[in-house]
Amino acid sequence: MDFGKILNELAAHAREHIGKGKVATYIPALARVPADKFGMALCTLDGTIHRVGDSDERFSIQSISKVFTLSLAIGQVGDELWRRVGREPSGNRFNSLVQLEYEHGIPRNPFINAGALVICDVLLSQLPKPKEALRDYMRVLSGSFDIDYDEEVARSEAETGFINRALCNFLKGNGNLTNEVDAVLDLYFHQCALAMSCTELARATLHLANRGFSPLLQETLLTEAQTKRLNAMMLTCGTYDAVGEFAYRIGLPAKSGVGGGIIAVLPGEYAVTVWSPELDRSGNSLAGGAALEYLTLVTGKSIF
Amino acid sequence: MDFGKILNELAAHAREHIGKGKVATYIPALARVPADKFGMALCTLDGTIHRVGDSDERFSIQSISKVFTLSLAIGQVGDELWRRVGREPSGNRFNSLVQLEYEHGIPRNPFINAGALVICDVLLSQLPKPKEALRDYMRVLSGSFDIDYDEEVARSEAETGFINRALCNFLKGNGNLTNEVDAVLDLYFHQCALAMSCTELARATLHLANRGFSPLLQETLLTEAQTKRLNAMMLTCGTYDAVGEFAYRIGLPAKSGVGGGIIAVLPGEYAVTVWSPELDRSGNSLAGGAALEYLTLVTGKSIF
Amino acid sequence: MDFGKILNELAAHAREHIGKGKVATYIPALARVPADKFGMALCTLDGTIHRVGDSDERFSIQSISKVFTLSLAIGQVGDELWRRVGREPSGNRFNSLVQLEYEHGIPRNPFINAGALVICDVLLSQLPKPKEALRDYMRVLSGSFDIDYDEEVARSEAETGFINRALCNFLKGNGNLTNEVDAVLDLYFHQCALAMSCTELARATLHLANRGFSPLLQETLLTEAQTKRLNAMMLTCGTYDAVGEFAYRIGLPAKSGVGGGIIAVLPGEYAVTVWSPELDRSGNSLAGGAALEYLTLVTGKSIF
Amino acid sequence: MDFGKILNELAAHAREHIGKGKVATYIPALARVPADKFGMALCTLDGTIHRVGDSDERFSIQSISKVFTLSLAIGQVGDELWRRVGREPSGNRFNSLVQLEYEHGIPRNPFINAGALVICDVLLSQLPKPKEALRDYMRVLSGSFDIDYDEEVARSEAETGFINRALCNFLKGNGNLTNEVDAVLDLYFHQCALAMSCTELARATLHLANRGFSPLLQETLLTEAQTKRLNAMMLTCGTYDAVGEFAYRIGLPAKSGVGGGIIAVLPGEYAVTVWSPELDRSGNSLAGGAALEYLTLVTGKSIF
Repeated sequence: MDFGKILNELAAHAREHIGKGKVATYIPALARVPADKFGMALCTLDGTIHRVGDSDERFSIQSISKVFTLSLAIGQVGDELWRRVGREPSGNRFNSLVQLEYEHGIPRNPFINAGALVICDVLLSQLPKPKEALRDYMRVLSGSFDIDYDEEVARSEAETGFINRALCNFLKGNGNLTNEVDAVLDLYFHQCALAMSCTELARATLHLANRGFSPLLQETLLTEAQTKRLNAMMLTCGTYDAVGEFAYRIGLPAKSGVGGGIIAVLPGEYAVTVWSPELDRSGNSLAGGAALEYLTLVTGKSIF
Repeated sequence: MDFGKILNELAAHAREHIGKGKVATYIPALARVPADKFGMALCTLDGTIHRVGDSDERFSIQSISKVFTLSLAIGQVGDELWRRVGREPSGNRFNSLVQLEYEHGIPRNPFINAGALVICDVLLSQLPKPKEALRDYMRVLSGSFDIDYDEEVARSEAETGFINRALCNFLKGNGNLTNEVDAVLDLYFHQCALAMSCTELARATLHLANRGFSPLLQETLLTEAQTKRLNAMMLTCGTYDAVGEFAYRIGLPAKSGVGGGIIAVLPGEYAVTVWSPELDRSGNSLAGGAALEYLTLVTGKSIF
Repeated sequence: MDFGKILNELAAHAREHIGKGKVATYIPALARVPADKFGMALCTLDGTIHRVGDSDERFSIQSISKVFTLSLAIGQVGDELWRRVGREPSGNRFNSLVQLEYEHGIPRNPFINAGALVICDVLLSQLPKPKEALRDYMRVLSGSFDIDYDEEVARSEAETGFINRALCNFLKGNGNLTNEVDAVLDLYFHQCALAMSCTELARATLHLANRGFSPLLQETLLTEAQTKRLNAMMLTCGTYDAVGEFAYRIGLPAKSGVGGGIIAVLPGEYAVTVWSPELDRSGNSLAGGAALEYLTLVTGKSIF
Repeated sequence: MDFGKILNELAAHAREHIGKGKVATYIPALARVPADKFGMALCTLDGTIHRVGDSDERFSIQSISKVFTLSLAIGQVGDELWRRVGREPSGNRFNSLVQLEYEHGIPRNPFINAGALVICDVLLSQLPKPKEALRDYMRVLSGSFDIDYDEEVARSEAETGFINRALCNFLKGNGNLTNEVDAVLDLYFHQCALAMSCTELARATLHLANRGFSPLLQETLLTEAQTKRLNAMMLTCGTYDAVGEFAYRIGLPAKSGVGGGIIAVLPGEYAVTVWSPELDRSGNSLAGGAALEYLTLVTGKSIF
């Protein structure tokens, strides 16, 4: 399949959606990203990378990082993890406190904010230097050794993150947090502030399309079972309150972030990342979603 | 792959779970089904059927019917349907009224009871004889022309179905029901009372594993896009409040019923049905879920 | 205190609010009541009645009837009643199903619809002819022996009452209803359809201002404790989701109905009824509320 | 009426409940209060004080302080206050986040924790030294000039107050907090840590039984309308999720705290305070509630 040609075509198609969504504005660093950015990178199992547009420009990966902190945490504590966080879609907004209260401080899944905070707590308990560990993990996975946190973004997140602070205190008050609230939030705000490009993210995700074995690193990063589970988690919980819509339109396990990025995999075939800052009403990249829909339509292949 | 051998092995394995779950008891006809029944049928794309255990004994398919009423309704009204029912997992019990009230009478998806009632309403508006149409549809799909409603089950459902009656009146009160409450409930209670065997259900589901084209009927029953969407719906909404768990453990689009049946597909490979009456706490067949998990583990193949 | 003069003054004042609210339109019989009707009747403990405006015109008392069905039920089963219905304000709309689901079919109090349906169920179990008994009770209390149900209203309520039907089925499905859903709803729709005037209602309420002893009938209708409890119930639960507002502005135990009527008592002093069909956003009579506020301001007396 | 005799009798009666409730244990300073403490003080409008038991021992007034911070805030900003906090009973636990999320950060009333935090925010904006102002207010009202904050309690509250911290951050994130979260919490934790005796609280509450005029200070502290409103607020929102129960059994405007204290007033007659550390399931003093119920039964007087 000529992915180079397909990417060029779908970029043209997807760009038509630019101007119809809204860039996230809750922190200045996100608000000032030009709305017409569009990049995409697709990495096949042989390691070949196909790119279009702003595929090498770094952006704030935001919630996409939740896939990688979950990977790290599962590696550390295994299925113990599921005593503190569920595996079901929430049917609510990503930062809702309602369900968390009804369910006594056990977040529905690791991809809503409350769940990701619990994952941070696990990493803080398990790793001597979790912030460095996460950064190094992303560097190794992507092969780019200058990947780093955008400290301005991390600071802004911390300054405006009252709802996340509320969630974190609520978890602590319900006995589902071992470390200090401030330490957990610091790691969380940093993971959201990782700056990476489409190319880097596509490479970092490739093992999820290959049963856990990275063709780039020639190394098994996750077991087959763990890989299956991460993909299942992305499909059922990865795109906020639009997972049904995403599965329905696109049919790939995917994780999005408010920075406008989306990672997705077609197991056995490829990992793909798309970036376009304008979001739809459910908080997913508008042109990014269109690009992925087009990709699965044109290639005639999804997981279904 | 020697599915015959695999099925025999996994049946032995799955039977070990019998005795650990609970048969549905809310109506007598379900309560008196022997708890130790176990059947399974797997149909590959070439039409070969592999069976084990009580694979040819009919049981009450219950909510599995929602896949087929949805198929019928989509064929009738297409995407118009989504103005009256959502496509997102609910994060709540299958018969919850809470979310329905907060969301003003628009059910979260067609597989929770409220959504299935809306689908019945659509069929009543579109088809002159919907009850006959649904029965005939199941007969044609499965190639068994004596499939029918179990009228005792339908009557019992009607007599005890106060929560469904509450849901249906609530929908009517919110303007999301065109037909009379009693007519909608009658169709709904009948669809739940369809009696079919594993073999019949596996055949009836085969086109969902083959992009909408039935190898048995040599006919296109759904478009590729519609097929993808039904599978996505099953994966994200098909197993009550355990869709994450199912995707995570099994990784196949699936739909379960309180009669203890589960249908599932691996696109490009097979359709499978398993039946074992005892349910786990989320209302899915306990041994049935174990059998499907074992199937994907042993074959090393799921959608992820 | 010259209540005659006060009533004339406050009527003028209250009438200024006419035109700012909305008459209930969910059934034709309510929708066609002229919006500019205004009546008020105040009955002091010596039995003297003071009136102004349309005080002798009958209107649909609607939810005001819940005070009297509760009186009847308490007389029948005493504190047993509180095993099936709570005594706390709901903090939700009068017909909400949300709280009822979270609280497993035990309505918050007898003045929300679900609670009133349970009271009807109690009356059906206790009284051979509950509809006649309720009508006769109202006749005796008010001294008007031609008080009756408006059958057109009862029929309209039944035809449009899908949400009440949903509530009733939900109660039945949760085991909190002994009688048939249809019988319970029939009594409920009839109690809402009682037609009475301000004068009749003020007389019927007088014993609640006098520790349970009716000066008109020279008879003890409720014990002191029961009277206290009914008044407490009215104050904390009597005016939908505006009980705080009512206590705050008016400071009298009161019960309102969507027909635009409100009954209220100042213990030791008087019973009062006001009627004006236009409702405010919380479903209470707009001009009626203003009249009561003015009454407690001018007299300088409330329960606080 | 011989209140001295009545208090002695009801103390004996109320003490029988000691041993059936639970002392609050979430902070050490509360946990170590002897469970068998019981004190009561009743102050009639002429300033006479009647006492029984441990009526002069100071205890942690906790949420009782919300009546006084609300008084201060109403004096500062008047009805402006109600744009930021409601006046309706919540129908939920005192520290629930659910309703706060559904209602977009506007707390239901000033007596649930979220509402009290908004009141603290108002005081911080209006008063140069709110902590000193509140302490001095309590000193003047009670005539005891050594009343102070128990700094150990305040510190413990701060250390364990994660849910309050969650609520406060949630308010901030919803734009309903002007000052810093830490400053608001500091004032809140201090108000809860005020240490006062029954006698002091009864005196401090007396003006609420006398239309706002304090017989002790010979001064008008609140207008008649403000007094009526505070009493209405206490009756409908003052005793957590048991306001209906309290109104029903006792029939006095009252405010309780988890330290085991309850203040109550019978307008035109008296202010009363009771203290007994063991709480019932709704968080109100068990023996304290029994004492107040007995008081209204024996005297035959409540607001109803």
